Amino acid sequence: MSVATAVAHPNIALVKYWGKADAALNLPATGSLSMTLDVYPTTTTVRVDPDATADTLRLNGSERDEQATGRVTRFLDVVRELAGSTHRAHVDSVNTVPSAAGLASSASGFAALAGAAAAAYGLDLDARALSRLARRGSGSASRSIIPGFAVWHAGTDEESFAEPLPAPDLAMVIAVVDSGHKPVSSREGMRRTVLTSPFYPAWVTSTAETLTAAVTACREGDVDRLGRITETNALRMHAVIQASDPPLRYLTATSHEIFDRVERLRADGVGAWATADAGPNVVVLCRAADAETVRAALAGLVELVVAHPGPGMRVVERA
Amino acid sequence: MSVATAVAHPNIALVKYWGKADAALNLPATGSLSMTLDVYPTTTTVRVDPDATADTLRLNGSERDEQATGRVTRFLDVVRELAGSTHRAHVDSVNTVPSAAGLASSASGFAALAGAAAAAYGLDLDARALSRLARRGSGSASRSIIPGFAVWHAGTDEESFAEPLPAPDLAMVIAVVDSGHKPVSSREGMRRTVLTSPFYPAWVTSTAETLTAAVTACREGDVDRLGRITETNALRMHAVIQASDPPLRYLTATSHEIFDRVERLRADGVGAWATADAGPNVVVLCRAADAETVRAALAGLVELVVAHPGPGMRVVERA
Repeated sequence: MSVATAVAHPNIALVKYWGKADAALNLPATGSLSMTLDVYPTTTTVRVDPDATADTLRLNGSERDEQATGRVTRFLDVVRELAGSTHRAHVDSVNTVPSAAGLASSASGFAALAGAAAAAYGLDLDARALSRLARRGSGSASRSIIPGFAVWHAGTDEESFAEPLPAPDLAMVIAVVDSGHKPVSSREGMRRTVLTSPFYPAWVTSTAETLTAAVTACREGDVDRLGRITETNALRMHAVIQASDPPLRYLTATSHEIFDRVERLRADGVGAWATADAGPNVVVLCRAADAETVRAALAGLVELVVAHPGPGMRVVERA
Repeated sequence: MSVATAVAHPNIALVKYWGKADAALNLPATGSLSMTLDVYPTTTTVRVDPDATADTLRLNGSERDEQATGRVTRFLDVVRELAGSTHRAHVDSVNTVPSAAGLASSASGFAALAGAAAAAYGLDLDARALSRLARRGSGSASRSIIPGFAVWHAGTDEESFAEPLPAPDLAMVIAVVDSGHKPVSSREGMRRTVLTSPFYPAWVTSTAETLTAAVTACREGDVDRLGRITETNALRMHAVIQASDPPLRYLTATSHEIFDRVERLRADGVGAWATADAGPNVVVLCRAADAETVRAALAGLVELVVAHPGPGMRVVERA
């Protein structure tokens, strides 16, 4: 019997992933660019158990139902096939994202699970292979394998992994907005967008161009350009989603108020640019030196958390 | 010397006009569908003056500057060419839209000006010719010539006019939202969208299909279908605008709150659908019988005005 524990962090995309080229393999329609955070780690232990007849999943101390376990089992099946094993496993995961924070925990969750499961099943995978593996659980998990800034490539199963990207010294201020209503999952939102938004093909084409520009801005340390690209790309993602039928709006009134405040900050000469994933939270990108100024300017509306580039997935224990 | 006075009302599009095929002739990239309102009339008097050396413009009792007058002169030049006249004119216009209401007054303004100028210069034009003429001043003015519901066709200069459309018994509740910042004009917003939004070509293609469906829903009296089309099309217009570079957001936090309230109204079984032009105001379409219910549900947030289908442009005096 073999046990391993891994830790991974969430990431926030500056150029977004929205839409799959292949749903079974989680291949994205376009590449994306993200920053892995230094807050809200997920710690996951996988214990391979030759005597077990089914996989089990504990999340924050509670045994999870069949549906949640099913997604983990499908992921472990990929690992077992690579390892040539048929043994079941017990997965115990502790996720520190406050559930009200609405930050997707699937990226850190599947990155940590990929690392722990690979180690527990005795696979020796490099970062690229781990990123491809994590992708199978959740697309954006491919990026949480990588520390700091990462580009996740579109392409075939072989080609679609995340890798590190040199970047300037940046920070993010996370504004935790409560949506007040049951969210539509990213998975369902992507499906609706691909099927019903007339803007989806142009989103794919334009995001591919945006990614090239963002990678160049990152490498050249051009923060202003990277910031403008980040906000424009985020608003384009929310636009392509909003154009679905029926329409889908993830940003709330409060989210828009934060976008307005960020616009005013820029008018005052502070380099700050807003982005948002498929939910009401707004994340503000800025130079590390400006993080406190940005936090102060957003204060009083919602809970704020300052994040910096964080570590990639690490296996912290194996036995 | 000849004088004429005309009255016209604003209109709100259910299928939006956003983007020109020809800027000089104000030919739209797509057709649109609107309801002319029974509130906020503009009354305009045109006095042809053989002795004057320049056109003059008074708006709500104040003499306007050269820039505002210039747009009127360019419009009167079209009328003069049709009439074979070189005489200048004095234009006196009274607009009852409260300026804080942010409802575009160019539709009612140029519809009234077209009617008054045509009469004052001795032109005998039918509704179709008046609609084409009003279009030259402001695209959406072509629709304010027509009472109640109107379709404005895309096409050549000859083909691009508005005409009446049979429709069910509907009302609109106008929520007057203050933007709190200097707006970007529709003209400038359209330009930026056409030049920089990657979604613009798909907006044009999809809106053409949407218009066909909306005309059918109108003719068949299918209010639910027309309502859904109205809200989806409005959110698509704001999406194609938001995807511009730099991004352009006309809806404010309060606008989004009203869209949320309308969504909740529908969840409660009330047929209500939100739309918004290029500004923060939200207009809620509903059955005439539901107008009071909708008004009550939106109360307490901003000023509300209930509007019904209104008259087309009328020449009320000539001498």
